[in-house]
Parts: sequence; structure tokens; C-alpha cells
Amino acid sequence: METVLKGTEGTVHIAPGRPTVLIGERINPTGRKKLATELEAGNIEVVKREALAQIEVGADVIDVNVGATGVDQVAVLPRAVEMVQEVVKAPLSIDTSDPAALAAALQVYQGKPLVNSVNGEEKNLSRVLPLVADYGAAVIGLCMDEEGISDDPHRRLEIARKIVERAKALGIPREDILIDCLALTVSADSGAALVTLEAIRLVKDELGVNMTLGASNVSFGLPDRELLNGLFLAIAIREGVNAPIVNAAQVRQAILAVDVLLGRDEFAMRYIKDYRKRQKKG
Amino acid sequence: METVLKGTEGTVHIAPGRPTVLIGERINPTGRKKLATELEAGNIEVVKREALAQIEVGADVIDVNVGATGVDQVAVLPRAVEMVQEVVKAPLSIDTSDPAALAAALQVYQGKPLVNSVNGEEKNLSRVLPLVADYGAAVIGLCMDEEGISDDPHRRLEIARKIVERAKALGIPREDILIDCLALTVSADSGAALVTLEAIRLVKDELGVNMTLGASNVSFGLPDRELLNGLFLAIAIREGVNAPIVNAAQVRQAILAVDVLLGRDEFAMRYIKDYRKRQKKG
Repeated sequence: METVLKGTEGTVHIAPGRPTVLIGERINPTGRKKLATELEAGNIEVVKREALAQIEVGADVIDVNVGATGVDQVAVLPRAVEMVQEVVKAPLSIDTSDPAALAAALQVYQGKPLVNSVNGEEKNLSRVLPLVADYGAAVIGLCMDEEGISDDPHRRLEIARKIVERAKALGIPREDILIDCLALTVSADSGAALVTLEAIRLVKDELGVNMTLGASNVSFGLPDRELLNGLFLAIAIREGVNAPIVNAAQVRQAILAVDVLLGRDEFAMRYIKDYRKRQKKG
Repeated sequence: METVLKGTEGTVHIAPGRPTVLIGERINPTGRKKLATELEAGNIEVVKREALAQIEVGADVIDVNVGATGVDQVAVLPRAVEMVQEVVKAPLSIDTSDPAALAAALQVYQGKPLVNSVNGEEKNLSRVLPLVADYGAAVIGLCMDEEGISDDPHRRLEIARKIVERAKALGIPREDILIDCLALTVSADSGAALVTLEAIRLVKDELGVNMTLGASNVSFGLPDRELLNGLFLAIAIREGVNAPIVNAAQVRQAILAVDVLLGRDEFAMRYIKDYRKRQKKG
């Protein structure tokens, strides 16, 4: 089961046993006022800067998101994608909840992108998946639907199954789907991370698909978030996540270490190289 | 499945879903020249100091080991146990490969100790398990035998099964056995940690016993060992290890974080309390 993503030049392979692929945390204006203001003012350069910053800290796939109040995503998203692809060779993740903006961005994208995302809602499935099929893209499938996010891992599996089946009916192969079992906040609900981990295990066992995970929510409201996020990712990667969405600056080192432990880095060469690079930087 | 250990006053419960129990890394003269010299010279006070140091950094069970060339363990180990129990209320792990010394130490021990350890060798099983049964102790069972440590996880499971069965025949209940699936060094063999993790999963699924793990070997020869050890423990704990043998000073914080993630620390109260304590110290 191998997911292949392509940028203007770079190709990324996501598969069990291969090194973990880092999807850079989205360039997302939500809650980032200055960025939103710049985008509203038509300044898309900011998206390019953020993309380059993610590459710099070691992200393998760059998420592009221009969603904010007052931003015309249908006009802005394709321009942002083009601009980022001028300077970034790696594959992009096109991150929007607006199908029209997604269609416009897919049209200009060079390569094979990751669509972020589809979920289990009927309306969403029927609007997003045909675009994914038409453009031969890969897609992130979120384990949530009209009823929200269930705290029953079997229910999350059920939604993952539905997404995989609907995709199949449109000719999208299973290897082009990255399931996200969704991580909620443990400080709000002690069982939240366990539900996610159980869902990941179920999805891995039954569907065998590659998986992503936006993990940083898990530690919200707690001290030493970086520690919690790294440990949670370690467990999630062991359970089957192989392309998490992360702040690479914060957790890349931990993920390289996990790859050593899981036998995905022969002689720890990547790990040691990264360590030496960090030592030099001081 | 609950393992209960008792010291002069403290009782420790090891069970799935309960907070992870830290067995302090053994007070072990191997490779520690000064300590060995002091023990040879009859200075057992050093053992007491080390035990208190482990308590100080948050170990729940204290390992006592006086093995070194030139040390008469049969004479020294029981004296060391008595001396440590004068100042430490927590349960001890009696760590020796000499059955005569073990018998002498068990005789003076107050409470229900952990015997560290028995392995799958016939000779070892037949000498150690009867002592464990006679004194109503709990025991660590190492997944190795006459043929050494196998790189086949199913073979490690087989040895664990044998230890559990032999113990049962002597009336030692399964809950008094902590299996150690053994961690070797990933820098020497990229698959080493994976074999351990697979063995842990197999033992958990088939035998359902509580498990320990001496995890720090895994990172030998690599930089940032603390990071590697913490991440490895996180995965191992998720797989079923619930009483690892650790340098508590180094990994306690990571283990408290793992307990938060695995829903074993309601409202993250222990985690936050520990964080505040460290902030004050620091």
C-alpha cells in the first residue's frame, strides 16, 4: 500500500515500513490575525514565505490554506498554489473546505497533490471525491460525519470504511486515501487519545490504508506540549500513522527517533545526520 | 491481572489501566568501579544512598544489586536489603543471579518483594522459582534461555509461556509474574526494538500478564539517548509494559506524559503536579 504524491519535481512515497512523511502544519490563517489581514489585502506572498519556512524545518509535504473571513478562496487559493509551486518542489496538500476553491486549485496544480480533506458527510463526499477522481489526486479522509466526531473508535472505523468505499466506486484506489482518525484534547477528556489510538489500530487492521493525523490538539491546555505531542506521535506511528500533519520544527527530531526505533532508518543514518546538523547550528 | 508488591509500609499495584510503575534502575556495580570498590571493602552504606537517590527522583520500586567480582553476595545482599529497608518504605526488587544470595535476602525481606530475575534456562527455573513460591514473592521472567536471546518474537513468547507454566506448577499465580521481553540495541541491529515490541504484543495478547522492560539499552551508541528511551517506553507502555525498569531521573516526566495520553491520569493531575514541582525547583 503506497501513496505517491508529486510536486513540480519532488516525489514523496508514503508506505508501511518507509520513513515517516511529515506534512507541514497548514499555512492557516485561522486564529492568526496578521496572516488573515495580509491575505485579505491580497498579499499572497505571505503564503510563499510560510511554505519555505516549513521546508526549512524539514516538512516533506506542504499544506496550503488561505481560508479566512473576507478571503475569496476561489480566486486566492489557485494563485497561492501557483506561487508556492514556483519555489517549492515538494508536493502540496491543498487545504480548503470550499469545493469550488479546491477545483480551481487542482486545475493549476502541477503534479499529484494531496487534497485536505473529505469527511464522511454525504454532501461533502459527493462534492469532493469526484474532484479527487477527476484530477487523479490523493485525499485525506476525516473520520467524522453529520453526527460530528464519535467517541466510539468502531464508529470512526465505520466512517473510514465508507470513505474508502465511496472513493472506490469513483475509481479512486485505496492507496490514494490517507485516513485521519482525528485527535481531540486529553485535558478535556482523559479517554480522548485512547479512542484515537484504538481507531487507528482498527483502521490499520481492517482497511490497511496509510494514515495521517493532526496530532497537536491532543496536548491543548497542558504544559510541555512538545513532549506530549512527540510521545503521542510515537505511539500513533507505531499503530499505523505514517504521514502525520505536524509542526516540523517541534517534532521532527522525535519522529526521526521513532523511525530509528521502528527499523525505518538503517544504521540510524538519517537520525545521526540530523543530530549533527543541529549540533552545527548550535 | 494485578501484581501487588509490598515494602515495610508502601504497597505498589501493577495493573493494566493503572498509572505506570517505575522500577528504579538497579543499584548495580557492573561497570561502576567506585561502587564495586566500596562494596568489596564492606561499605554497604553506598547501597542505601543509591536507594534513597532513586526514591528522590520518583522510583516506585527500588532495585537492589550488589553483584561484583570479589563481593560475597550471600553475605552482603541480605545486609544490603535490611539496610535499605530501614530507610525505604517502598517495595524492593532483589536483583541477583546467585540463588543462594537470593534465598538469604528473601529470608530477611519484610513484605512482598520482586525477584529480579528468573529466565527460561532449565537450571535457572528449577533453582529460582521454588524460592519465589516459598516466600510468596513476585518475579521478573526474562525471555531468554540456553540459546540466548532470540530475534524471533514468537520464540520470546514461547519462553514467557514456559516461565508462566513452570511457575503455575509451583503454585505461583500468573499475576505474580512480570515478563521482560528484553530490549537490545538498535544501533547494532535496526530491527532490535521492533522484535521487542512484537514480543510484547504477543505476550500481552496470549498471556495477559503484566510486563517490565529494561529499556535503556535500546539507545546505546546513539546521540540523544533520553529522547530515544522516552519514545521507546511510550510505545512499549502502549503495547503492555506497565512496570519498566528505568532511570527515573531521566524518563519519569515522559512516563507521566504517556499516562496522561493513555487515560491513566484523570485530568492530568499527576502530570501537572509534577510539572509544577519541577518549575519550583528550577
